[in-house]
Amino acid sequence: MSKYTLILVRHGESEWNQKNFFCGWYDADLSETGVGEAKYAAELLKKKGFSFDVAFTSVLKRAIKTLYIIQEGTDLHWVPVIRSWRMNERHYGGLQGLNKADTAAKHGEEQVKIWRRSYDVPPPALSPGDKMWSGNDPKYVNLDPKVIPACECLKDTVARVLPFWSDAIVPQLREGKKVLIAAHGNSLRALVKYLDDMSDDAIMGLNIPTGIPLVYELDTNLKPIKHYYLATEEEVKAAEARVANQGKAK
Amino acid sequence: MSKYTLILVRHGESEWNQKNFFCGWYDADLSETGVGEAKYAAELLKKKGFSFDVAFTSVLKRAIKTLYIIQEGTDLHWVPVIRSWRMNERHYGGLQGLNKADTAAKHGEEQVKIWRRSYDVPPPALSPGDKMWSGNDPKYVNLDPKVIPACECLKDTVARVLPFWSDAIVPQLREGKKVLIAAHGNSLRALVKYLDDMSDDAIMGLNIPTGIPLVYELDTNLKPIKHYYLATEEEVKAAEARVANQGKAK
Repeated sequence: MSKYTLILVRHGESEWNQKNFFCGWYDADLSETGVGEAKYAAELLKKKGFSFDVAFTSVLKRAIKTLYIIQEGTDLHWVPVIRSWRMNERHYGGLQGLNKADTAAKHGEEQVKIWRRSYDVPPPALSPGDKMWSGNDPKYVNLDPKVIPACECLKDTVARVLPFWSDAIVPQLREGKKVLIAAHGNSLRALVKYLDDMSDDAIMGLNIPTGIPLVYELDTNLKPIKHYYLATEEEVKAAEARVANQGKAK
Repeated sequence: MSKYTLILVRHGESEWNQKNFFCGWYDADLSETGVGEAKYAAELLKKKGFSFDVAFTSVLKRAIKTLYIIQEGTDLHWVPVIRSWRMNERHYGGLQGLNKADTAAKHGEEQVKIWRRSYDVPPPALSPGDKMWSGNDPKYVNLDPKVIPACECLKDTVARVLPFWSDAIVPQLREGKKVLIAAHGNSLRALVKYLDDMSDDAIMGLNIPTGIPLVYELDTNLKPIKHYYLATEEEVKAAEARVANQGKAK
């Protein structure tokens, strides 16, 4: 029997998605389309009668704003929000700020696909002198510099997301709270991989659509009983295809 | 020497201020003017170079939205936010939902002024059957019903704000964090009374203007060294007068 409810929402389009840049930890804003996607997520939650008692997000504004727009649309402003860098997007290291199409033209679509989709091949690493180095960002000044990633493959992202799942999110579920997480393609993938016990290969093929709430019903051991999107199959497929097409040279 | 920085912001006009209703714990939204006031607060902070590391607010959307608009305007979305009912507006009990002008016409301007401005005369109490009773609101279902106010005089508000100051806000200041609090006329008055050790009479005369950040510099013992608004004296006086005129029969 379903015991706990977890709702995942991937943020909508950012200004950098729009420009086809690798974004990662760069703090790009939502585009107007992205704002619309967040409003749509709120509508879906409301229409299907879903609520939440506590929410988690990253320290990146495209996820934070998605959550805020959902709270505005569901009239749940008062619900506590916990922001953590551990829910950030995968850190794209030396690819951050590069146009995806240019990178694909330069390194080949296959290499880009490997960097984006392979489980354990990290992209080029940044160093503290680089403009995109995250250690100079006020968001992370209280973090031990040794913890700040220079780049991440999905395996690295999984490794830094899971402690937050165990230590911050699970206790809230255990208290019986319905949890909503507004985050990023890869931090959500990390959770889904763990929850559904997916192989490294299988997770590479999963494109979580943006702005469509993904509901997990968990049993008393926090094992998924079932999961489903709050939208029709067609809507989900269309959103997945949009996401899968990012990073193709054009 | 100044050791700690505390910034207080009173939320801007709500839709109920506009209609001249007693609001209290009713969760009225910001009016368009109120949104503008919050944006102005963000501009003032930015212009004067003020930032913050952690923020506190109530569980009422007019304060939460004011804070969010400030975070949007200062690009500080990532700053942690702690919501608490202890920072709520004073609970106006049986006056909530009544038009201030009608109440003044019925009970007399003096009585309304006493209810609004006296330190220890509470307004008429609500009971659990009343429409405005807060105990049925999902925001407060986890609170011991004995803690949910039926009405409050300012003395009551002070009594429930101060534990939150000591237990939640002070530890953040002691860690060296610059703290911003986006809250309400009376929960902020409670703090100001305590910080400045003001008499019961003196606090009655204090009208904190809306949307103008009030900065406290505190010494190592958390005693105020000085405080100042981030606006000209004329701007502050005009805002104070607007607030003082609320509740007059018209």
